Amino acid sequence: MELILKMCTEAVIDAVHLNCRILGVGVSTGGRVNPQEGVILHSTKLIQEWSSIDIRTPISDALHLPVWVDNDGNCAALAEKKFGHGKGVENFVTIITGTGIGGGIIQHNELIHGSTFCAAELGHIMVSLDGPECMCGSRGCIEAYASGMALQKEAKRLHDEELLEVDGMVDLKKAESVSAIHLINAARLGNHKAEAVLRTAGMALGVGIINILHMVNPSLVILSGVLAAHYQAPVQQVIGQRALTSAQSIQVLTSDLEEPALLGAASMVLDYTTRRIY
Amino acid sequence: MELILKMCTEAVIDAVHLNCRILGVGVSTGGRVNPQEGVILHSTKLIQEWSSIDIRTPISDALHLPVWVDNDGNCAALAEKKFGHGKGVENFVTIITGTGIGGGIIQHNELIHGSTFCAAELGHIMVSLDGPECMCGSRGCIEAYASGMALQKEAKRLHDEELLEVDGMVDLKKAESVSAIHLINAARLGNHKAEAVLRTAGMALGVGIINILHMVNPSLVILSGVLAAHYQAPVQQVIGQRALTSAQSIQVLTSDLEEPALLGAASMVLDYTTRRIY
Repeated sequence: MELILKMCTEAVIDAVHLNCRILGVGVSTGGRVNPQEGVILHSTKLIQEWSSIDIRTPISDALHLPVWVDNDGNCAALAEKKFGHGKGVENFVTIITGTGIGGGIIQHNELIHGSTFCAAELGHIMVSLDGPECMCGSRGCIEAYASGMALQKEAKRLHDEELLEVDGMVDLKKAESVSAIHLINAARLGNHKAEAVLRTAGMALGVGIINILHMVNPSLVILSGVLAAHYQAPVQQVIGQRALTSAQSIQVLTSDLEEPALLGAASMVLDYTTRRIY
Repeated sequence: MELILKMCTEAVIDAVHLNCRILGVGVSTGGRVNPQEGVILHSTKLIQEWSSIDIRTPISDALHLPVWVDNDGNCAALAEKKFGHGKGVENFVTIITGTGIGGGIIQHNELIHGSTFCAAELGHIMVSLDGPECMCGSRGCIEAYASGMALQKEAKRLHDEELLEVDGMVDLKKAESVSAIHLINAARLGNHKAEAVLRTAGMALGVGIINILHMVNPSLVILSGVLAAHYQAPVQQVIGQRALTSAQSIQVLTSDLEEPALLGAASMVLDYTTRRIY
């Protein structure tokens, strides 16, 4: 928390030097967030000790500015709505495939937060009754099939079995560590094992997204994160094969925003501070 | 359509005899419905020719009454909201396990219809990348695992293989036809094959419902239809095992309404005609 306050203070000083007016502070964070209270209820495994943390009050007290907080998936959806493909779209969904998988659902121009702020946990849509183990304790979640972490795990497995490297690839012994990108490259160069892993990952993500279509029926799906460009075609294909006819016409786009979660945090500030209520 | 109009006219005559005032007509139907226009866009396989049918105009013209139309799953959710466990609950979901599986999602006290009126197609949530074939053309939908039709199919398969009947069951040769009820009875009497089928069905339905929780995070799940009482315990158990901690506290109740879809159709009439807009 001290580090966050220090960074905020420095950013304020920078802004003053640039002659910028600061409207407020937007915070995008992993885990489950109560945006009305500015409290992180329960965080992801990466920052496990962040549970029931009021992040709004200390920042607000230190900077004398209003503070808004939301989950990073929700923030990414807000960014698409204000700056990206979601502009003017009433119902859409954004899915971020990074280390994990997250996302946000916009319904009637508003985020769905749900009754315990646990909506849009899109990484934990399950597409298998068994399937690979997930960080959440369950199995068969799309995050366990299609996230960067899941692909890296498979890449490492293949590498350990000496099945990953193919002619034309950069020497993996020189690479710092095996990653999802190596898996994608191997598949492109004709490695059938790598292709099979990616096919299953694309299928799992596609089926997960169809589940979203059959539940909230958005008019647009936006993929973002490092793997977005890779997944766009397979996801569109799976939708064509397996969605109900009435959901097949959905557009699947790749985000053209950099850092959508951070842009979304900023958009909360812009939206709230410029909302005319008088 | 003629039959429907004839039945409506008879119902009107009956109502006059009973000295009842008729406020309007509510229609609950299978398939995808545009409730704003009163049009059935696309119907289920059971009544296949009903596509792009304006059902409101002929009824309204014949009876000189306002008409409201919606999908049966959505109507069932409206019924729970007005008369059932959903009274006063802002976010809830209802799931009907009958011949097929349908349902409705209430979010902020309103139905989610989606961008092409295809939301809440809860029977077609997929919980398997392959799994059993579904009527919709895909595979692994919860309807293909847990609907009355799916259980009947499995009951017939076991019966054909002479694996269904166990001591203590009514003689199945005398039974008119093998049904889901026989499967449930066989499992109760210790038939392991029947138990396994039901265990998989309950798991599939439970995982499908968790997918709903992780997407829209309602505070209540209401099961209705003939199989509701049977599924309540397994679904609650699967949620306890596999949902995110923050979604595990959800209540799963069995509906106590008879014919919720029809009650919901009636509730549309009541809600609209008694809504004060002046």
